[in-house]
Amino acid sequence: MKTRQLTELAQQLRVDSVRAADAAGSGHPTSSMSAADLMAVLLAHHLRYDFERPAHPANDRFILSKGHASPLLYAAYKAAGAINETELLTYRKLGSRLEGHPTPRRLPWVETATGSLGQGLPVGVGVALAGQRLDRTGYRVWVLCGDSELAEGSVWEAAEHAGYEHLDNLIAIVDVNRLGQRGPTRHGHDLDAYARRFRAFDWHTVEVDGHDVEAVDRACAEAESTTGAPTVILARTLKGKGVRAVQDHEGLHGKPLPDPAEAIAELGGVRDLRVEVQPPPAARTLHPVHSGHLELPRYEVGDEVPTRDAYGQALAALGSARGDIVALDGEVGDSTRAEYFGKEHPDRYFQCYIAEQLMVAAAVGMATRGWVPYASTFAAFLTRAHDFVRMASISGSGINLVGSHAGCAIGQDGPSQMGLEDLAMLRAVHGSTVLYPCDANQTAKLVAAMADQDGIRYLRTTRGKTPVVYGPTEEFPVGGSKVLRASFEDRLTIVAAGVTVHEALAAADALAEEGLRVRVIDLYSVKPVDRATLREAAARTGALLTVEDHHEEGGLGDAVLDAFLDGRPVPRLARLAVRTMPGSATPAEQLHAAGIDAGSVMAAARLLVEHAVLV
Amino acid sequence: MKTRQLTELAQQLRVDSVRAADAAGSGHPTSSMSAADLMAVLLAHHLRYDFERPAHPANDRFILSKGHASPLLYAAYKAAGAINETELLTYRKLGSRLEGHPTPRRLPWVETATGSLGQGLPVGVGVALAGQRLDRTGYRVWVLCGDSELAEGSVWEAAEHAGYEHLDNLIAIVDVNRLGQRGPTRHGHDLDAYARRFRAFDWHTVEVDGHDVEAVDRACAEAESTTGAPTVILARTLKGKGVRAVQDHEGLHGKPLPDPAEAIAELGGVRDLRVEVQPPPAARTLHPVHSGHLELPRYEVGDEVPTRDAYGQALAALGSARGDIVALDGEVGDSTRAEYFGKEHPDRYFQCYIAEQLMVAAAVGMATRGWVPYASTFAAFLTRAHDFVRMASISGSGINLVGSHAGCAIGQDGPSQMGLEDLAMLRAVHGSTVLYPCDANQTAKLVAAMADQDGIRYLRTTRGKTPVVYGPTEEFPVGGSKVLRASFEDRLTIVAAGVTVHEALAAADALAEEGLRVRVIDLYSVKPVDRATLREAAARTGALLTVEDHHEEGGLGDAVLDAFLDGRPVPRLARLAVRTMPGSATPAEQLHAAGIDAGSVMAAARLLVEHAVLV
Repeated sequence: MKTRQLTELAQQLRVDSVRAADAAGSGHPTSSMSAADLMAVLLAHHLRYDFERPAHPANDRFILSKGHASPLLYAAYKAAGAINETELLTYRKLGSRLEGHPTPRRLPWVETATGSLGQGLPVGVGVALAGQRLDRTGYRVWVLCGDSELAEGSVWEAAEHAGYEHLDNLIAIVDVNRLGQRGPTRHGHDLDAYARRFRAFDWHTVEVDGHDVEAVDRACAEAESTTGAPTVILARTLKGKGVRAVQDHEGLHGKPLPDPAEAIAELGGVRDLRVEVQPPPAARTLHPVHSGHLELPRYEVGDEVPTRDAYGQALAALGSARGDIVALDGEVGDSTRAEYFGKEHPDRYFQCYIAEQLMVAAAVGMATRGWVPYASTFAAFLTRAHDFVRMASISGSGINLVGSHAGCAIGQDGPSQMGLEDLAMLRAVHGSTVLYPCDANQTAKLVAAMADQDGIRYLRTTRGKTPVVYGPTEEFPVGGSKVLRASFEDRLTIVAAGVTVHEALAAADALAEEGLRVRVIDLYSVKPVDRATLREAAARTGALLTVEDHHEEGGLGDAVLDAFLDGRPVPRLARLAVRTMPGSATPAEQLHAAGIDAGSVMAAARLLVEHAVLV
Repeated sequence: MKTRQLTELAQQLRVDSVRAADAAGSGHPTSSMSAADLMAVLLAHHLRYDFERPAHPANDRFILSKGHASPLLYAAYKAAGAINETELLTYRKLGSRLEGHPTPRRLPWVETATGSLGQGLPVGVGVALAGQRLDRTGYRVWVLCGDSELAEGSVWEAAEHAGYEHLDNLIAIVDVNRLGQRGPTRHGHDLDAYARRFRAFDWHTVEVDGHDVEAVDRACAEAESTTGAPTVILARTLKGKGVRAVQDHEGLHGKPLPDPAEAIAELGGVRDLRVEVQPPPAARTLHPVHSGHLELPRYEVGDEVPTRDAYGQALAALGSARGDIVALDGEVGDSTRAEYFGKEHPDRYFQCYIAEQLMVAAAVGMATRGWVPYASTFAAFLTRAHDFVRMASISGSGINLVGSHAGCAIGQDGPSQMGLEDLAMLRAVHGSTVLYPCDANQTAKLVAAMADQDGIRYLRTTRGKTPVVYGPTEEFPVGGSKVLRASFEDRLTIVAAGVTVHEALAAADALAEEGLRVRVIDLYSVKPVDRATLREAAARTGALLTVEDHHEEGGLGDAVLDAFLDGRPVPRLARLAVRTMPGSATPAEQLHAAGIDAGSVMAAARLLVEHAVLV
């Protein structure tokens, strides 16, 4: 396109952004207008993309990190012929694919859900890593960022990693319109402030007038020809560019234009230009995934094995059987045992250092390209990436998260290292699967099973050794449970998972010696829960006692409730959980102090059964 | 101290670190040994601190961001005479104050709990901001960081803010020992890589041999005399310094030394040097807190007011009554209405830009100096700071968090902006208080009440208008609830909070017209819950139906369970919550689609009552 045409295209994108927001009665047209020239140049001259084949292995990827500028994205889709005028004007309406912030659940051309700022670049790093080390079809990853979001630390985790990994297939374009939501950004139009920061993280930088389409075009070309480093194009722009009533004005973030008709006239009226987006080069299919026989590790019943060891060994085995498995580490692979995978499959092992947000975002990015990522760190430190997990669920992303060092059972290291909130966090994620195995064979089976679940899957592992209670041929369906002790005389059911299964078993056996028979359920699938088994146990035994190495809110005890929400009578319930703030102590002392060891289970069981009331 | 004495002191710190870890059988002596010279110089020559008066208003503050190097900290306490030899050797044992990672709950000299990396510097920024803008007693904030943790984005959020705010009272010392947990860091001993990054964020940088006590001494002096910018001292060190068997070796992170006796001999044996730490200058008491009459905003019953507006107005009023109230914004103060406070109290309003981790960490830092912070952003974006909230609870920090734009009721913006996991996240935090008001007067009262609670307090506000249902004189004790509809004929209790209270009321009134009387409880205190009222309602009406604008796990429905865990019979229960992934739609359409509007409540109520079984 000639300069004049590019400018016209940009004006069309502005006009269509104004129209979409006007039709919706909400949205962010001014944030779209600042980036319209950037988008026009990218779409017309640089992006290589087949809108009819969004999964094309050589398609460039485009991520709108400033997701609130969705009118601009949808206007671009219209210009590219992917959506029509009628659909554009459904923006933000019930049932429309064109949500307030773009999501891949609805639109096939969206790589990842955005709208929580500072996530597009880290996810882009994941896609670019996949491009550089796995797919190798030559695609580029373009990420359009806002300037406000550069305040997010996750952006600098991403910048650090992209520079370190020499991701020259990654190009960030920053729409420096100097205005955030409530006022000016820290650095306003000081492009050099941003350039110094990116350069310090080993990026190539280009500063440009973001409304000069020729200059933007040259900047994109320079980025494309830069090797050995990612490029950031810092574009000086004006929010609301092109309409005097709003241009560069504060206080107009996230508002439709006051007089859309006048604005459209000022922008030169409605156009219907169509862009022929450059197609990607021919390329082989997504990636060759070899598939072989899965030979999971097998453990002897009675042996003592940490479930984290089983995770590492099973993941390594899964990686041998399936070529689409990748693993990401947050610089604790020796603790989580992810390094077992790294040693066997170094080409599919990604060291993310101590940057949990980047680690999860990179997993999301790799999943967009069809890879099946396992990202692991201490369960406690997954809280660092909570917002990324939340957004991944909005994307419908299929990622596996594994948190080690669950609960107070870790012992001496103290509360900062204990995962005591992770079950609550992961259960509350829409569509998640939450698994918590108690022994090594169960862990191995669940590591393999989780790969094929939908949505976010979480596995919680234990630091210390636990006895192997299941044989290597036992199966553990997601959504199931195991009844480990049962008799016709059971007067109570103890529901446990992970480390507390062993406490519950010890308690049940000791109580049996006393003449009190109790049922024990291993609820390894915390979400979804095995409603039928819980219901039946409750009906037969009259009461349930849950015991968990987690804070009392949102964990196993709350999960059990899910089986009793159908309006039918509920059994008597009691819960043992970590109610105090632990300090340092041995694992056994911790379980005792928290009141979740076998002795505490026995005491609670006796009260529940013998007095029928706990307090 | 002379050079020789400083070196001796450093060797003592090493020896005591080795001894403490040996006595514990665990811990991180090699990570302590690398920083021993840094700590010796700081303690002997630069820190101004009265160990007998840890709350002294002019005390410098010291934060061990690399909290796993706790043996070094405790060895320093011993050298300063704050603890004795016997206590040192209780390290990591049950009941000891000397936990695996330091916590202020146990030790009066610890500012903030560390152990989750990348948190010390952001918290230090909060303390330094308090020092610069609030306390003004001239204290410095020293933060000892590891090099691995510089991979955390939160460090760069802090670096950006400290540079921007010219925090020359903040000094970071980075122990660049080149080895992380599982192997080398990204940049190894390349001090300049770190210096370039910090300089780009407008810090003064000093590079130094971290084992040359004279050079470290000069670097600290240079930092102290630097004005207008924070300083980072980048110290090249060796992990395990001083003991050939471990020095600069990989694979020895977090392990006691293999031969402690030999190591102690190699380090010159046990010493008992005592440091006279320089006292702080005389200073006025912590900060002058004026206290006046609290004149909360008052709203007319029947008016329609967003609870977020009431939050902003009440906070501004609280700020007028109490001089210790401060507010922090994540660049959305126009949305959360925190800006109302900012306009009235600009000296106590802190703009943190879009950096939620920094915002929460800064609140924690300010709370250490006696300030009462309110930090607010969208409820959804508080997930970004989850790990900081978790660590704040370990600190026993008293901070107020306010999340706006709760639930699908926000409407068109879509799921990325909806707080649908926040109740689960905040309930699972140890010792937290979780409040969710439904109207403006209730909000105002709770905003004031939360200031005086212990631990983490969370208030959830709604974007749209809700009718005022309570008069301005009504009281809302934390842990209470309000029964809004009740009769002797009630056959069901609907438990709601926030926006669903109004749906529940509409449903109850419409059902009453049909001849079906139901009770309505406004459970504004989600944690702690009002067990007595829930119990009584259950006993009288036979069944509970919870309805909440939150995902089904970990929210209101689970909270209600807390009233029924005493082993006594539980009523019939059913739950309405957001079970699907919302898109864009109007608020009313969202509530309907999620099945939490009045019509859905009515349908569920009829089923529960008339069929006595929901499914």
